Amino acid sequence: MNNFEWVCPTRIIFGKNTEERVGEFAKQYSNKILLHYGQGSIKKTGLYDKVVNSLKNANVEFIELGGVQPNPRLSLVRKGIEICKKENINFILAVGGGSVIDSAKAIAAGVKYEGDIWELYEGKGTLKEALPVGVILTIPAAGSEASMGSVITNEDGWYKRSINYDILRPVFAIMNPELTYTLPPFQTAVGAVDMLTHVMERYFTNTKNVDLTDRLSEATMRTIIKYAPLALKDPHNYDVRAQIMWAGTVAHNGLLGTGREEDWATHDIEHEVSGIYDVAHGAGLAVLFPAWMKYVYRHDINRFAQYATRVWNVEPDFFNLEKTALEGIKRLEKFYKEELNLPITLSGLKVPDDRFEEMAEKATEKGPIGNFVKLYKEDVLNILKLAK
Amino acid sequence: MNNFEWVCPTRIIFGKNTEERVGEFAKQYSNKILLHYGQGSIKKTGLYDKVVNSLKNANVEFIELGGVQPNPRLSLVRKGIEICKKENINFILAVGGGSVIDSAKAIAAGVKYEGDIWELYEGKGTLKEALPVGVILTIPAAGSEASMGSVITNEDGWYKRSINYDILRPVFAIMNPELTYTLPPFQTAVGAVDMLTHVMERYFTNTKNVDLTDRLSEATMRTIIKYAPLALKDPHNYDVRAQIMWAGTVAHNGLLGTGREEDWATHDIEHEVSGIYDVAHGAGLAVLFPAWMKYVYRHDINRFAQYATRVWNVEPDFFNLEKTALEGIKRLEKFYKEELNLPITLSGLKVPDDRFEEMAEKATEKGPIGNFVKLYKEDVLNILKLAK
Repeated sequence: MNNFEWVCPTRIIFGKNTEERVGEFAKQYSNKILLHYGQGSIKKTGLYDKVVNSLKNANVEFIELGGVQPNPRLSLVRKGIEICKKENINFILAVGGGSVIDSAKAIAAGVKYEGDIWELYEGKGTLKEALPVGVILTIPAAGSEASMGSVITNEDGWYKRSINYDILRPVFAIMNPELTYTLPPFQTAVGAVDMLTHVMERYFTNTKNVDLTDRLSEATMRTIIKYAPLALKDPHNYDVRAQIMWAGTVAHNGLLGTGREEDWATHDIEHEVSGIYDVAHGAGLAVLFPAWMKYVYRHDINRFAQYATRVWNVEPDFFNLEKTALEGIKRLEKFYKEELNLPITLSGLKVPDDRFEEMAEKATEKGPIGNFVKLYKEDVLNILKLAK
Repeated sequence: MNNFEWVCPTRIIFGKNTEERVGEFAKQYSNKILLHYGQGSIKKTGLYDKVVNSLKNANVEFIELGGVQPNPRLSLVRKGIEICKKENINFILAVGGGSVIDSAKAIAAGVKYEGDIWELYEGKGTLKEALPVGVILTIPAAGSEASMGSVITNEDGWYKRSINYDILRPVFAIMNPELTYTLPPFQTAVGAVDMLTHVMERYFTNTKNVDLTDRLSEATMRTIIKYAPLALKDPHNYDVRAQIMWAGTVAHNGLLGTGREEDWATHDIEHEVSGIYDVAHGAGLAVLFPAWMKYVYRHDINRFAQYATRVWNVEPDFFNLEKTALEGIKRLEKFYKEELNLPITLSGLKVPDDRFEEMAEKATEKGPIGNFVKLYKEDVLNILKLAK
């Protein structure tokens, strides 16, 4: 087990009607806020009106900035920073999923960062301060509601890059599972993939003696695996949606990484794919993570056998642990294909193979990626080919 | 699943040599602190010198208050409050186990509370503000390093009472498993019981559809069950001590209660026993929790069967789930007796039966206790008799 530091001060406000209390919570931070959201679905569902009413009742003034797209764009972030500076806004409320929250975090960072915000995403400069961000979550997937991360796409070159700072963890996250009833099946499915992958990126590690972290991870994965198909079948079932929603937060608030090295190579590769093709993040991961597994599992067959047995109930073959390990990967792929109805190849995602070279190049331009196994350009290329 | 609010902002600083950084962390809160500890074991082990050096290097002035006893006393709390007020101290560093931390929290509350501190423990008055508390943990057991609770014993009548406030969660907890190498076997064992009971008090609930919380709880219990006996056999094994130490925090930081009603009747009963007899808290729980289980399991045999199967690997007898449930209780008792070498009867703890009536009376003087099953005086008496 490695030394670690971990803190997650996000206040979780979970359950029915909790969105009606947003004014009360926002008020604790500011009387004038930026209300940040996506492409208007919150207006169709009535959530927008509820939020506006709650803010007005609490005498919280707000300026709106909607229009966040999936794979949130740097240009809108810049616009948000400008508004906050001009209007003297010192709190951002993100109403939406991971894209909206990540965009809000980028604005929160940019307002306080003296240089250009993209510098941070390029790994230059260090963020010391950020505005507080509050969240009403509508899409359980990215875990951004309690995570330290923000992923932004720069349209100039289609670079998709991330930053991670404890000060970017939202100060509160309001989570009402009812708000997820209207999610289309595809978004429910790719959300589940995103969550599962957040756990798996941490689970496949070279650090020994992390049994508690392993078991907590397995608990979270089993929950997602059980409830995601139920959410597809019965989208208005509160208890099902609640399990999924809470699992998405636990998957990515940092608890499941405590004491160990994490990997994240697949996320890096996926960012190159969805940076170019605008593929849904979770859909990309559903294709790439199994391919990554097939490419690296020999590095630690025992860990893959443990995963197969504890997560997928594969009966261990003690005379052939490799077979056990492979069966776990097969079950994951089968789950994505048959239970979540997702493509499990890049071609199924309509991603052609003619820019693999470019993606592999960009993914590794700062050096090898991943920790479980270090991946060089050639390795990334091989994984993309395995995913073809 | 119930609506819930949960926040745990304690910064965990975990691993080897982390205690040497205490000055750096304390400094973030104050230049003048109260250094609070127990009965001097930290001087024997050399920890005291390390702490003092680190504080001096960071130019943090400190006033000492040692002498915290197990089942920490109100009189010392009052003394601490007096010192802090007189010396204008606004940060408390607790170096020790749950007793020292609980005493520090009580002082932190008392300095800011306008009335008498015991009022709060009696359930009168509300705490709105408290000094920040930092921790160097030496005994993994109580989980107080990241919990909202503080338990104090009033020598005037030997009342043992608790308070719970989010503002009492320590701001940081430094946790070096090496500091637990010298714990006597008995303390290691009763610490594990305390942790397990913190999970079980939350696990036996009437709230339906809490699968993630259940599974995270089972993960934590299995870890404690696996590593506690190993810690007794091999007390200087870092990895074993690390698993136990981290499990103790996860067991009681609130995560495992999210979305459900908790019980806590056994803690209430134990507080009456150890309030009178000065029995170690965990030793009391090792006797009383199995007795409680035997008294209430018929209330939800399915939940007890799930516990037996998922936590103790009992093969479920689907034609006799009661038998499965009972086997789980038997395994727990056997574990306490044979693996942790603890008494499993009150007489084994040298607690006679002549004051059962008084304890049952005091435990229920404000009304029935517990939530899984509401217990009245007669029920508490029956449980004490079952534990005899």
